[in-house]
Amino acid sequence: MSDFTYDLMAEDGAARRGVIHTPRGDIQTPAFMPVGTAGTVKALYPGQVKDTGADIVLGNTYHLMLRPGAEEIAALGGLHKFMNWSGPILTDSGGFQVMSLSKLRKMTEEGVAFQSHIDGRKFMLTPERSIEIQCLLGSDIQMVLDECTPFPATEEQTKVSMELSMRWAKRSKDAFVSQPHRLPGQALFGIVQGGVYRHLREQSAAGLQEIDFPGYSIGGLAVGEGQKAMLEVLEFTAPLLPKEKPRYLMGVGTPDDLVEAVSRGIDMFDCVMPTRSGRHGQIFTRYGKLNMKNAKHASDARPIDPNGPCEASRDYSRAYLHHLMKSGEILGLMLLSWHNIAYYESLMAQMREAISEGRFGAFYSQFKADQEAGEP
Amino acid sequence: MSDFTYDLMAEDGAARRGVIHTPRGDIQTPAFMPVGTAGTVKALYPGQVKDTGADIVLGNTYHLMLRPGAEEIAALGGLHKFMNWSGPILTDSGGFQVMSLSKLRKMTEEGVAFQSHIDGRKFMLTPERSIEIQCLLGSDIQMVLDECTPFPATEEQTKVSMELSMRWAKRSKDAFVSQPHRLPGQALFGIVQGGVYRHLREQSAAGLQEIDFPGYSIGGLAVGEGQKAMLEVLEFTAPLLPKEKPRYLMGVGTPDDLVEAVSRGIDMFDCVMPTRSGRHGQIFTRYGKLNMKNAKHASDARPIDPNGPCEASRDYSRAYLHHLMKSGEILGLMLLSWHNIAYYESLMAQMREAISEGRFGAFYSQFKADQEAGEP
Repeated sequence: MSDFTYDLMAEDGAARRGVIHTPRGDIQTPAFMPVGTAGTVKALYPGQVKDTGADIVLGNTYHLMLRPGAEEIAALGGLHKFMNWSGPILTDSGGFQVMSLSKLRKMTEEGVAFQSHIDGRKFMLTPERSIEIQCLLGSDIQMVLDECTPFPATEEQTKVSMELSMRWAKRSKDAFVSQPHRLPGQALFGIVQGGVYRHLREQSAAGLQEIDFPGYSIGGLAVGEGQKAMLEVLEFTAPLLPKEKPRYLMGVGTPDDLVEAVSRGIDMFDCVMPTRSGRHGQIFTRYGKLNMKNAKHASDARPIDPNGPCEASRDYSRAYLHHLMKSGEILGLMLLSWHNIAYYESLMAQMREAISEGRFGAFYSQFKADQEAGEP
Repeated sequence: MSDFTYDLMAEDGAARRGVIHTPRGDIQTPAFMPVGTAGTVKALYPGQVKDTGADIVLGNTYHLMLRPGAEEIAALGGLHKFMNWSGPILTDSGGFQVMSLSKLRKMTEEGVAFQSHIDGRKFMLTPERSIEIQCLLGSDIQMVLDECTPFPATEEQTKVSMELSMRWAKRSKDAFVSQPHRLPGQALFGIVQGGVYRHLREQSAAGLQEIDFPGYSIGGLAVGEGQKAMLEVLEFTAPLLPKEKPRYLMGVGTPDDLVEAVSRGIDMFDCVMPTRSGRHGQIFTRYGKLNMKNAKHASDARPIDPNGPCEASRDYSRAYLHHLMKSGEILGLMLLSWHNIAYYESLMAQMREAISEGRFGAFYSQFKADQEAGEP
């Protein structure tokens, strides 16, 4: 099969259980996509990532275009081969990281000129170049270049920004359609902008559907607006999107964010949180967060969770994990990142099962109660 | 079986093929023991270490007594459980690291007082305390506390130091025999000192055999004397040791050192080199060393070795490994450390097979030729 398709298999309230078919494999949704920024999900082997239940990983266009370079990866056979990951890969457009990481940016209608944060080299990212890079990388799901509207922004600023993103979405689609390197079954997603303003989200969702994409992301969230505002936007934006296509919330979030967003109809997520937090000693569990650097774990012989989703959760004492983190040992970063990714993936699997079985409401209540209660 | 025994299975020239039986499992010799300094072989999961073919790992008494502490590890069930390694563990005495890492040392007949390099806390390490710590850790092979004779040292300095080490060896044995925490099948090895002076090595070897140990280490080497001098010492010291007991060369070395030392009758090795070098981008292969940070690897699609001993050697391009190291990615350290440990263990396995089959001479010549020739 060489097509990109989405099957909506079950609904439970607004929550959706589905599957995305791609030539490189299926993606069970709701899905969490571990982030492989520079071609590696930090501190995990690709086989481990797969074994946690992740069907798809994300690669960052910004990081990869700077180092080693899109043409360089293409010459080596593409990103899948480069990072030894045979499943689907989603790439972002690079726009968000240009805004948050690069130096000396200059934004025009054409695109954004910037300097590499690594070595100061000058680059120009346009909708067309972003698509070209993503096709050189060979990613299965690609994103249109958009302007990440700053937060806070006035309604006027948000409107101007959203309209620019819409013109760029059209240029991205045109570039994608005419890309010589494009492979059958590759998909390009649109990104709904409009900040916290409902009518702007409506305009954006409508405009993008006129251009027509096989999936839609809800962008410009998780940028400082807070969970409550984010969920309000999701609540009125998700229903603006076609039922028969996947919905992707970019850069989100905590386990609680995932459960809340799934309950509002989101199908796909990515976030650096599980790996980044793991590297800093913080883990996520059924009963909330733990900081393994905390002295209270120093003599605790219990594992993170005897029924946990991977060996890192089950086979090492908290005392040992504490010791590794206090000693600056790489194995500490490896084990905590692994646990967190495995926990996130197990949470998604639990949600998928609950939706399939029509008991997402009960799952939701239990999840909230456990997180609130803390460890028994 | 609850005894510690050594079977010499084959000899080929001075090279020996044997097996050490311990209650926690057999150790095929010649053996390379990966170093798990602070309770972890850096950047590898314990299951991976085992899968490379390592039968035994080393733990450092100095590091573990400082953090988390010997009594703390004992309370958690011992070092095996702590680090999730069920096979044999060898611990050193702590003496070498006290000399190389600690602050404000004061050496007396009684032992050595020092301050932790981590937090300045004061400790006293005596032969009796070293054995107590090693028994608290629960290691299967323990080492007597000795003075690591500085290099260079005069004959008189070397003699004085060797004689102190001999008195400490006797005290270590006495402490070991009377240790309440000792388990059946645990073994204590003596350490031959005497620097580069043959008659001092003879005196040391004879004195230690009078005390009687189930295995002997050759100490005070790899401290700056150079490979030639080291091999000369091995050449006259190994024959001073009983054939029916294992011989351990501490802290050595490069692949070439291992092959040369095995050809002179050494059975056991440990060294941080494969993991430390891996973390710095240097790998060891059949054809010598490669530095993966070197720009020449940036577009090289070949793996380290398509027939290599582990996935790190076979499944990732040199270009990718170069990218990971240039990008400071943890996966780079993980893959290169893994490859190096797997290469070391495969080298030991090749030597064991060659000795068993009476073709160690041919193996030796081929090894030297390949290392000299570089990659074809």
